[in-house]
Amino acid sequence: MTTKEIADKVVQLCSQGKFQEAMSLYSPDIVSMEAGAPPGQSREAKGIAAVKAKSEWWSSNHEVHSVKVEGPLVAGAHFAVTFKLDITFKPQSKRMQMEEIGVYKVADGKIVYEEFFYSV
Amino acid sequence: MTTKEIADKVVQLCSQGKFQEAMSLYSPDIVSMEAGAPPGQSREAKGIAAVKAKSEWWSSNHEVHSVKVEGPLVAGAHFAVTFKLDITFKPQSKRMQMEEIGVYKVADGKIVYEEFFYSV
Repeated sequence: MTTKEIADKVVQLCSQGKFQEAMSLYSPDIVSMEAGAPPGQSREAKGIAAVKAKSEWWSSNHEVHSVKVEGPLVAGAHFAVTFKLDITFKPQSKRMQMEEIGVYKVADGKIVYEEFFYSV
Repeated sequence: MTTKEIADKVVQLCSQGKFQEAMSLYSPDIVSMEAGAPPGQSREAKGIAAVKAKSEWWSSNHEVHSVKVEGPLVAGAHFAVTFKLDITFKPQSKRMQMEEIGVYKVADGKIVYEEFFYSV
């Protein structure tokens, strides 16, 4: 798949809340970078097992009321989308709106890098 | 100015090749991050003087045949655009097409961070 095809697939799946399914587009060597991390933890998750574990933690700790995905913007091997989420962080029953930009890099038809930009 | 207003201004000025003018939108404390750097050099330029120097080097070493700017995608304090450039690197008379994503962060009505994503 081209960068554009993968980007469209990410938008389609994530718009439907199918975040786990979107991971079928990831390389085993995916590197995932958050904007920030709790003290003592890393912003970076390396490898599909670590990235899936991060995603599963997120999914089981948040209730998603709505998700809107905009884009993609495509440039060469990279693409960018925005996520606008209305979620509740379940451990604290805290409802919040989050807006972030995701930047992705594609190599050999798989996503090899993702980075998220939001205010921390 | 809001994130959206600054983003629209960046798109407008850069589409016209007015890269220097776009720098009026930058904070004195701007941090600019490239996707890569030559051996021994830093990916990061810190402060408006360093960032202007980088931009002036770029402008005087490249002839811009065309520039297309797409976007913006806006999420909170961040926005993303793409640059599609047809340029000649003058020292080597080497013409090339470049595609990159720029991600920007806005604080207090000024751009405080920019990062570029392209294949190096």
